[in-house]
Amino acid sequence: MPDTQYIIRPMKAEIIAIGTELLLGDIVNLNAAYLSQQLAGLGIDVFYHSVVGDNPSRINSSIKLALSRADIVITTGGLGPTVDDVTASVIKTYVLNNALTLKNNRGTVPGQFIKLPDNKFLIALPGPPKEMKPMFRKSVVPLLKNISGFKSVIKSRVLKITGLSEPKVNKKAKDLLELKPPVTVGIYAKLGEVDLKITAKAESEARTLKLIAPIEKKIRKRLNDYIFGADEQTLEGVVGEKLLKSKKNMAIAESCTGGLIANRITDVPGSSKYFKTGIIAYSNQAKELLLDVPPGIIERYGAVSKQVAVKMAQGARRIFNADIGISVTGIAGPTGATKNKPLGLVFIALSKNNKTICKEFRFPGDRVTVKWQASQAALDMLRTSLRG
Amino acid sequence: MPDTQYIIRPMKAEIIAIGTELLLGDIVNLNAAYLSQQLAGLGIDVFYHSVVGDNPSRINSSIKLALSRADIVITTGGLGPTVDDVTASVIKTYVLNNALTLKNNRGTVPGQFIKLPDNKFLIALPGPPKEMKPMFRKSVVPLLKNISGFKSVIKSRVLKITGLSEPKVNKKAKDLLELKPPVTVGIYAKLGEVDLKITAKAESEARTLKLIAPIEKKIRKRLNDYIFGADEQTLEGVVGEKLLKSKKNMAIAESCTGGLIANRITDVPGSSKYFKTGIIAYSNQAKELLLDVPPGIIERYGAVSKQVAVKMAQGARRIFNADIGISVTGIAGPTGATKNKPLGLVFIALSKNNKTICKEFRFPGDRVTVKWQASQAALDMLRTSLRG
Repeated sequence: MPDTQYIIRPMKAEIIAIGTELLLGDIVNLNAAYLSQQLAGLGIDVFYHSVVGDNPSRINSSIKLALSRADIVITTGGLGPTVDDVTASVIKTYVLNNALTLKNNRGTVPGQFIKLPDNKFLIALPGPPKEMKPMFRKSVVPLLKNISGFKSVIKSRVLKITGLSEPKVNKKAKDLLELKPPVTVGIYAKLGEVDLKITAKAESEARTLKLIAPIEKKIRKRLNDYIFGADEQTLEGVVGEKLLKSKKNMAIAESCTGGLIANRITDVPGSSKYFKTGIIAYSNQAKELLLDVPPGIIERYGAVSKQVAVKMAQGARRIFNADIGISVTGIAGPTGATKNKPLGLVFIALSKNNKTICKEFRFPGDRVTVKWQASQAALDMLRTSLRG
Repeated sequence: MPDTQYIIRPMKAEIIAIGTELLLGDIVNLNAAYLSQQLAGLGIDVFYHSVVGDNPSRINSSIKLALSRADIVITTGGLGPTVDDVTASVIKTYVLNNALTLKNNRGTVPGQFIKLPDNKFLIALPGPPKEMKPMFRKSVVPLLKNISGFKSVIKSRVLKITGLSEPKVNKKAKDLLELKPPVTVGIYAKLGEVDLKITAKAESEARTLKLIAPIEKKIRKRLNDYIFGADEQTLEGVVGEKLLKSKKNMAIAESCTGGLIANRITDVPGSSKYFKTGIIAYSNQAKELLLDVPPGIIERYGAVSKQVAVKMAQGARRIFNADIGISVTGIAGPTGATKNKPLGLVFIALSKNNKTICKEFRFPGDRVTVKWQASQAALDMLRTSLRG
């Protein structure tokens, strides 16, 4: 039944980004990705992106080609008043009777929404994302919804996983990754995170949600607590919500992560409610002076050891009178490794209710990569300690 | 004279990225930007980028169109073994006698370098950047250098500026921004940073450097100490070099930046040589307990005040026996503002040689934006305190 309901002809769009700086690789074409996501949400298919420089004849031939293949052609960039910006003069040649000027609330240059013969549309938007995005959302989306019967809707749901490698997630979701439309699952590996994206296409939003729900349920059953959040949620945001909900606060003692964990926690608005203090104890002196780590322990086991991680977490909790103390000590590289303590060795300890746990990790990659993975692992230990 | 030497016909290239995930906006086309930069460095002009989904006939027509306009067509993506990856089968139809298989050291799927009639070339590369980039550098660049007389070279020099707004930099460099080839200057505004990029195109690298040098000299004379670095340098890296060179170390006390400054400083390999300790003192209790800020001062002036910033910087320096103490206190938002203390108000103090300076800033934007700008300003105060 879903299949027969699915016989619709979605409109086709193309996106043309204009600007020599894109062809030089000076900037990345973020606008095309943004517009594609938005158009997908409206059920409009995108078959091509293109990028062309600030050259009137090449801009014109790109627009002509795109109009021959698609119903809707959106250009971004080149509308400004400077000599380089030549799009406006090309766009003008397409304006017959049916053109709307789109107001730019964040800049000086307006956009254009032009109705052409054969039910085709040419939409010219400014290049800077902070001008383009609100213009698209506020002016273009309502117009697009009006011009034609949009019968299909695409919805996605992203489930975010940490603590499991991509091959392991792949294995657990293998059959789901092979699903065919109208509902599909994609896998996206990031540093310290794997995302599973469920996408459904149907004639209404309600129907897409009905297609997504059982797949999400299956994934949640299989991956359970490895899923830290969904869609726009961040790990530090989820940790913050759980701390607020459980009325707990925390203090942190960072060595190799150098402030990254505290920085991520304090990116969340309202984090001052649960984040008490962070100590970045790079030196042994700081570990002893600020966190009460006994000097004998550092001498005996080394600064990068389970024993020191445990004392740091306990010290952070006790000294700052916090509910939870977290500590990280490790070797981010490129120097500092020894025969028994390789680059990427990291100990993370968590002290809570007079109980302290410590985990050992080996993270691959360079300094910044190791720091990030350690911050993911620490935030995830905090998250799982707060469940139930 | 330079103009007559400049009569060369550079080769033209086009880049086609293949993958439905790009058309859905799930990933951004970073490959096109990377390849464009690399090709510019080889003196090869890029007039078009395009993106097409995993559809054989659309891939084929995109390649055909690109070959009609350019000498070199590079595709990325779609070479893998899965059902979605259909590029390989399309590429095969172009292989006559003259094809080289390109080894993939980071993955399983090889690339193709195909010589076509009329001195045209089709190059198929894998999609994952970590496979594509080394293949391009190691296999494609030497081949490209061989196939034809590359007579022109493009070189760029980026001068990085902080502490001046884009309109102000624009005003100071107005005449230079209007320069015409073979040497041009572009301006790029980032958060807390403005870049001026000098680009020269000539028949040899030596000649490009000769074109760039006098323009760089002019910019340096006008913007002087606002320029913190060039090309790949980062502000935290420059600060680190200066600390090493002057044999100084530092401690930091952060409130509203929440660990961001320490995190940036410790991203630099070897920073443990000059970074002693960081304190993230979100609460008044932490400011008093860890940094010896007198309680009376906080009561009288408030935690976000010049007086508290000064005491925090002095405390950080004294308690950790550091050469330099830096502190930041401010209101990053979205809450915490009062009538006299608006969102974005930040005080940064620097204590060195028994002298403490404090600057007041008003940064626009949201929480994360304010944090970043405050970290730029603090690192820049550190940098300028270390000169000469």
